[in-house]
Amino acid sequence: MTRTLSLNAFLHDTGHHEASWRHPDSSVERVHDITFVTELAQAAEAAKFDGVFFADIPGLWAATPYRPTAHLEPITRLSAIAAKTERIGLIATASTTLYDPYNLARLFSSLDILSDGRAGWNIVTTQSEAAARNFSLAKLPSPDERYARAQEFLDVVTKLWDSWEDDAVLADRDSGQYFDPEKVHAINHVGRFYQVEGALAAPRSPQGRPVYVQAGSSNSGRAFAARNAEAIFTAHQTLGDARAFAEDIKSRAAKFGRNPDHVLVLPGLSAFLGDTEAEARELQEHVNALTVPAYGLAQLEGLAGADLSHLELDEVVPVEAFGSAGNVLDNHRSRLQVVANIVERDRPTLRQLLHRLAGARGHNVVAGTPLQVADLITEWFEEGAADGFNVMPPLYPQLFDAFAEGVVPLLQERGIFRAEYTGSTLREHYGLPRPDSLYAGDRAAVTTA
Amino acid sequence: MTRTLSLNAFLHDTGHHEASWRHPDSSVERVHDITFVTELAQAAEAAKFDGVFFADIPGLWAATPYRPTAHLEPITRLSAIAAKTERIGLIATASTTLYDPYNLARLFSSLDILSDGRAGWNIVTTQSEAAARNFSLAKLPSPDERYARAQEFLDVVTKLWDSWEDDAVLADRDSGQYFDPEKVHAINHVGRFYQVEGALAAPRSPQGRPVYVQAGSSNSGRAFAARNAEAIFTAHQTLGDARAFAEDIKSRAAKFGRNPDHVLVLPGLSAFLGDTEAEARELQEHVNALTVPAYGLAQLEGLAGADLSHLELDEVVPVEAFGSAGNVLDNHRSRLQVVANIVERDRPTLRQLLHRLAGARGHNVVAGTPLQVADLITEWFEEGAADGFNVMPPLYPQLFDAFAEGVVPLLQERGIFRAEYTGSTLREHYGLPRPDSLYAGDRAAVTTA
Repeated sequence: MTRTLSLNAFLHDTGHHEASWRHPDSSVERVHDITFVTELAQAAEAAKFDGVFFADIPGLWAATPYRPTAHLEPITRLSAIAAKTERIGLIATASTTLYDPYNLARLFSSLDILSDGRAGWNIVTTQSEAAARNFSLAKLPSPDERYARAQEFLDVVTKLWDSWEDDAVLADRDSGQYFDPEKVHAINHVGRFYQVEGALAAPRSPQGRPVYVQAGSSNSGRAFAARNAEAIFTAHQTLGDARAFAEDIKSRAAKFGRNPDHVLVLPGLSAFLGDTEAEARELQEHVNALTVPAYGLAQLEGLAGADLSHLELDEVVPVEAFGSAGNVLDNHRSRLQVVANIVERDRPTLRQLLHRLAGARGHNVVAGTPLQVADLITEWFEEGAADGFNVMPPLYPQLFDAFAEGVVPLLQERGIFRAEYTGSTLREHYGLPRPDSLYAGDRAAVTTA
Repeated sequence: MTRTLSLNAFLHDTGHHEASWRHPDSSVERVHDITFVTELAQAAEAAKFDGVFFADIPGLWAATPYRPTAHLEPITRLSAIAAKTERIGLIATASTTLYDPYNLARLFSSLDILSDGRAGWNIVTTQSEAAARNFSLAKLPSPDERYARAQEFLDVVTKLWDSWEDDAVLADRDSGQYFDPEKVHAINHVGRFYQVEGALAAPRSPQGRPVYVQAGSSNSGRAFAARNAEAIFTAHQTLGDARAFAEDIKSRAAKFGRNPDHVLVLPGLSAFLGDTEAEARELQEHVNALTVPAYGLAQLEGLAGADLSHLELDEVVPVEAFGSAGNVLDNHRSRLQVVANIVERDRPTLRQLLHRLAGARGHNVVAGTPLQVADLITEWFEEGAADGFNVMPPLYPQLFDAFAEGVVPLLQERGIFRAEYTGSTLREHYGLPRPDSLYAGDRAAVTTA
């Protein structure tokens, strides 16, 4: 079977560039309007994208007033979008540290049922101390503790999603049996963090389990992803870094006995597009000029865990300001590593660095023609650096439309991206199998009636 | 201003009669299909209902296979329904014992934003021990403890919904200020159960706060409702009981300094309708005959907390089996009181009692013509026993359609129910004020940037 490229539309505010909302043609007045994101999802569906995706932080992203930092809850928004779309996948971020597994299992089960099998869960453990303080936690658990909890959380949720076998519903009017009690299972989970009896209060969803997505690139994050994730959103600036990441993840997955083809690596890509490269760069510079340095600096200081106010905007950033890659991995702070790599490789001034990060928070930002961007996508895809991309337009909807109208047809002509949907679920778009229930064939059931 | 009747459509499985799914014309094959409940909501909107409502138990309702006891998650379902409706209110049940307040505040804020101001929250503390065992709780907190937690939970959620003042969003492209930091407030809640910094990660929603709905009728439940609820779903079999309840609640609300007109009392009403009373009764008897006694008996034993297996189906139920009303109130078990009242007043056989409860779990079940039902509604409304009704059709959609086509026009002719919507939010439908933010005018804000 030919490998097919996957494309997700990462929906985010007025666009992924932090200053995009200040562009005169931005949709900032509609940024919280469900019809705005619904139209974006419909455009992504018309372009045959695999899915749309919302990040999430349950708190204000930054306590600065310089951008639309409010985050509406993503699962409810995707439920509304599901009602106005037919085929596109719907991926929401939710935290294993800040949710209860029974509540989360229900929310995603419901999304999968009401969308006829299009739900995906981007599993995060939450790195934000400010978010923790919204949940009666004095501080976040350590990264190791968070990942240990995440693994148990995931195991509980998986058991709950599997607790009704696929053929448990009988709906037999004559006998009066609605379900077969031998096919609905108490999970009776007793673990270090959770004790959950089950079963889930819903039949098995169309995909069996919503798709498991993950985005951590730290050592702990990679280990978790290799064991559990079916799609990985990741940030890389170069083909070489991305390929090394993909090879590492797929070989780790194989060690867990998994098929590496069922672990999709999807780097972020934020493209300024123009009829000429010069036009694209001009747009990029226009938006970069709209950034508020105090905002970017606050983000950077949070990432570095250090005061950077002594640096001048036009001074070259000293390499030591962001530590070395080795330390960073041990610190579970993969985004910091991306920044450290930029600082070491490109020696930018502080202003240049702020502009680089303003584009998409460390994801790969490019400016060029549709042909140039299609060539980059094709090269990364063919060189094994990416199974697809998490498409992060700097400005919505304009730069999504430019991607859909300019880049997508080139990828379709080259035969690496679908011209029509061939499946109806997110698993089918991604080429992932539908898992059997853990309990299939197990006749120890929840009910005794 | 003329008082206007309120009508909610309580959406529940194939209908509120527990055996409705076995009716040959039931929609049991579509019971989990979002298009089924969406069509019901659209029908309720066409009939100018105030809202639709989902109950919720985060667990299997009963570990018996005799009815569609699976409960899909209601907030996600209402988010999908919001996308396909324009005006009708959307009320979801969620538990203060089993949710975290920040997560819950976000879910309802998002529902209110994406529905343009139609969200309501039915606040429950959860009475089901089986549900507690799905949430890593060895057992439920005591009723007093649950209500203490519920009050603090509600206070936190209210502060979060108010944490962005109505005019906090500036979206000022020129200055680069997206929001006014003086109008976004850390709530800094430090309480017995919760510590929550805030602010909410979302602007204030269209209604300011989703409508507070409550359904408990125990002493603790009444006190909580009188202090907090804006609409109360309640179960009464007689006008007298309902009026006593309404008078009690409204006088308690007045003691909290609240306007009694802003506390709507909405008893449940489940109507078998026919062109003649005989036809309606025939349909009721047909559906009653489809009940599975073992199912109803298990429900009744759970309610009574006693083994009733020694009773014969055609034996009159002894009064002492359900205690006295006095004890029941002290026990916080208001549904049991309804049953005790039926047993004491009507002296039914066990079979008759099971049929009574099969209709709508203790809510008022009637059989008659549209004129008879319209007369009952009008009488209860005019006598102060109800500000409206929670309409619980025994069989969806047939008996909802009969209500919409037969009963609603009579109520409209009498001028007690709207012929067209006059408002666009649930608060407006209910005649409730839009609350100001607690923080309006308070200049101590979350941000220092």
